[in-house]
Amino acid sequence: MTEETYDVIVLGGGPGGVAAAVRASQLGGRVGLIEGETLGGFCMNRGCIPFGHMMIASNILGGLPLGKEMGLDVKEVLKDYSALIKRQNGLIDFMRMGVSGTLAKNKIKIIKGKGRIAGSGKIEVDGQTFLFRKLILATGAKWLKPDFPGADLEEVINSDDLLRLEALPKKVLLFGESPWLIEIAQFLNRYGTQVLLATKDKRILSMESQTIASRLRKVLKGEGVEIKTQAEIVAVMKKEDGAHVDLSSKDGAETVVVDRIIHLERAAALKDLGLKTVHLDEEGPYIQVNDRMETRADGVYAVGDVTGDPSGHYSHRASEGGIIAAENAMGKKAFMNPKTMARILFTQPQVACLGLTGKEAKGQGYDVMVGAAPFSVNPFGMIIAENEGIVEVVADKRFGEILGVHILGRNASEMVGQAVLAMQMEGTVEELARASFPHPTLSESFAEAAREALGRPIYLP
Amino acid sequence: MTEETYDVIVLGGGPGGVAAAVRASQLGGRVGLIEGETLGGFCMNRGCIPFGHMMIASNILGGLPLGKEMGLDVKEVLKDYSALIKRQNGLIDFMRMGVSGTLAKNKIKIIKGKGRIAGSGKIEVDGQTFLFRKLILATGAKWLKPDFPGADLEEVINSDDLLRLEALPKKVLLFGESPWLIEIAQFLNRYGTQVLLATKDKRILSMESQTIASRLRKVLKGEGVEIKTQAEIVAVMKKEDGAHVDLSSKDGAETVVVDRIIHLERAAALKDLGLKTVHLDEEGPYIQVNDRMETRADGVYAVGDVTGDPSGHYSHRASEGGIIAAENAMGKKAFMNPKTMARILFTQPQVACLGLTGKEAKGQGYDVMVGAAPFSVNPFGMIIAENEGIVEVVADKRFGEILGVHILGRNASEMVGQAVLAMQMEGTVEELARASFPHPTLSESFAEAAREALGRPIYLP
Repeated sequence: MTEETYDVIVLGGGPGGVAAAVRASQLGGRVGLIEGETLGGFCMNRGCIPFGHMMIASNILGGLPLGKEMGLDVKEVLKDYSALIKRQNGLIDFMRMGVSGTLAKNKIKIIKGKGRIAGSGKIEVDGQTFLFRKLILATGAKWLKPDFPGADLEEVINSDDLLRLEALPKKVLLFGESPWLIEIAQFLNRYGTQVLLATKDKRILSMESQTIASRLRKVLKGEGVEIKTQAEIVAVMKKEDGAHVDLSSKDGAETVVVDRIIHLERAAALKDLGLKTVHLDEEGPYIQVNDRMETRADGVYAVGDVTGDPSGHYSHRASEGGIIAAENAMGKKAFMNPKTMARILFTQPQVACLGLTGKEAKGQGYDVMVGAAPFSVNPFGMIIAENEGIVEVVADKRFGEILGVHILGRNASEMVGQAVLAMQMEGTVEELARASFPHPTLSESFAEAAREALGRPIYLP
Repeated sequence: MTEETYDVIVLGGGPGGVAAAVRASQLGGRVGLIEGETLGGFCMNRGCIPFGHMMIASNILGGLPLGKEMGLDVKEVLKDYSALIKRQNGLIDFMRMGVSGTLAKNKIKIIKGKGRIAGSGKIEVDGQTFLFRKLILATGAKWLKPDFPGADLEEVINSDDLLRLEALPKKVLLFGESPWLIEIAQFLNRYGTQVLLATKDKRILSMESQTIASRLRKVLKGEGVEIKTQAEIVAVMKKEDGAHVDLSSKDGAETVVVDRIIHLERAAALKDLGLKTVHLDEEGPYIQVNDRMETRADGVYAVGDVTGDPSGHYSHRASEGGIIAAENAMGKKAFMNPKTMARILFTQPQVACLGLTGKEAKGQGYDVMVGAAPFSVNPFGMIIAENEGIVEVVADKRFGEILGVHILGRNASEMVGQAVLAMQMEGTVEELARASFPHPTLSESFAEAAREALGRPIYLP
């Protein structure tokens, strides 16, 4: 059998791999993409898309009280979970077809199977060898099993398992450090599940600004989500009435009885890729890359979840990396901007954060100014009763450089795009302060927060 | 009586006047603000805020079909219009108190009454004279009466009158050129009014891109709004069964019977201001200002609706102008950016446009590239069924300058803030193409539209 040669082979058909393959093809490369499971990766099949869809449904439920305040009184809502899952599975099928179409349009060869590097310039897929000039690894992450006694019980599940349940559990314990648990907590609570959210940290959303975290916590508690901090699962035992969880937390030791324990912990997928054949480490937590997405192996790039710890496992980081890797693989010089990766949650209100918190910035030696504008005094925020929402701007006093933007509010995930552009274009807090955002919008508070940082807010009380 | 002297007197307590007064005070000025009616101006009392509020209620109704697709079946919705009006009147009262508080905090003297300039450096309010070093005119706009026979009938109303109605009409004709009519049409239709929307132009939203206009038209027609173009009201006659309107349009002549005719036409409020005493023209359509908000009269500035035709009657233009005028009045050098005024509609999907359409840009001699990305192939757009939404980017081929951005979609009013910043910071279409917007969001299509303009879309089919 003749060995096929490609300019670029991409290993993994998730958001990073697809973007990389398309971009390499656009630049004239002969491109092959290896995928052993379904196209679209974790994000499309089991992550952002299904859970984004579920969060939008949960947001519709969460919007009903505002409607009622406005005189739109809904007498009864039937929540058909199976219809929700059916719609999202249909959407995912459709999107997968879209990915296939995109790859076909760009003349990318889809190689089905599990790829394993076989030394420099070679990769094997189910016994067949393919040759490449450049390789882009986009293999994503995999689940880690928790290590508490009882972790093997069928009651201990991850989000993949949750998606497969035909009916939602009556009572769950959500446990771990992933912010994603907060989304799932709000969703399940609104769909009638009794929810206990437990984190190992001192607070939920411990990596984000204290202000954002405490305001979101207030919303969740107000909705009936129970929260435990500094928590550990000591052991889980199966009994007739459910899973008995010995839980220690700041509140002390207790035993809670639940139907399911949802635990989310992921890490870069490094095993069985043949990394050692090109002298890459497969023991490390992830594949290290520089800002051109180059690994230490010549001609081998890596993008997405395989290149970092879970705090950076975002689809947009993967797709941006894919484009950068492809351009470098095809002889251009492109660089990843490490500052513009937004961290978002589709809770209601949404969380969208970018860059440094005030505390982090101080820790890095900046002379920091912080401005905050709550949506409770923003005209549009008042219209939509966005009472806990806020936008914070963190900047360096010397040159006015914007170091971080932190948003809690409706459509924060779209609004943070303003911060992405401002930081990408190296805008200053003075420029933000002068932005003429339309009225009435939450975005106006972004400019007001910048003015507050500069000591001249116009509207803040 | 001693005449009080101010560094800056602001005439008009709407968004432009308030921003001007606060900024002038921040810069150390002794500031007086003259207002004859209620603080907050047209926007807060009768414009953006009440109608924004009504549109959000209408958006909640418009979101129910998506909920149903997702398995959230609402059996019945009671629409209590009086509760809606009561909530928004309460909000407006609260916001007015906020404005009072802001003015008090900034030590701005509120002078109640109607102000009239009395020559250089002097203004009279109810017989009392106040002296100023600088004057900022922020008097807004006033209603124009239509001139067709029957225009004086009580059935012919404007939006102020609509707000005063205790119950919504059963059948209305909305007539005029204001895009605002489109918002009101959608609102009334969703609240059960039979709506006929008639425009003098060849299409609705004639000032915006053909793509945006035709897609919005499709949505409105699908919801049951009847649309007439190239329309004129020949005459209105009151009869027992309602107002009989002789209407000519592209479809020919016809008589329609309605409860109300809503006509919106506004123009700068120039009369009785004493403009002539400082040699300013009170006959022209509006007060002409330069980019420092200076009128032709020394020390007299003007901002907001009084400075332009209705296409620029936006609150954010007024407040930006207010800040610029105040800074210049207080001895700084500040300039208005004419390119970053977003034109928005709170319809569902929302409209948010900035800068030039492709056609306008060609007309101005640019070598134009246009990229468009429909939300029907955007992952988040698919989740929320944003089937008619789209984002268009218009840019100059030579330097990649972004000339216009046109959005139809959920939260376009927030998303357009990205375009505001990009154009304010003189970003290029290449920079937009590389923006790492979070996934899954509609904002991703903004980058994709930029890539399409550059001939290298990643995901578009």
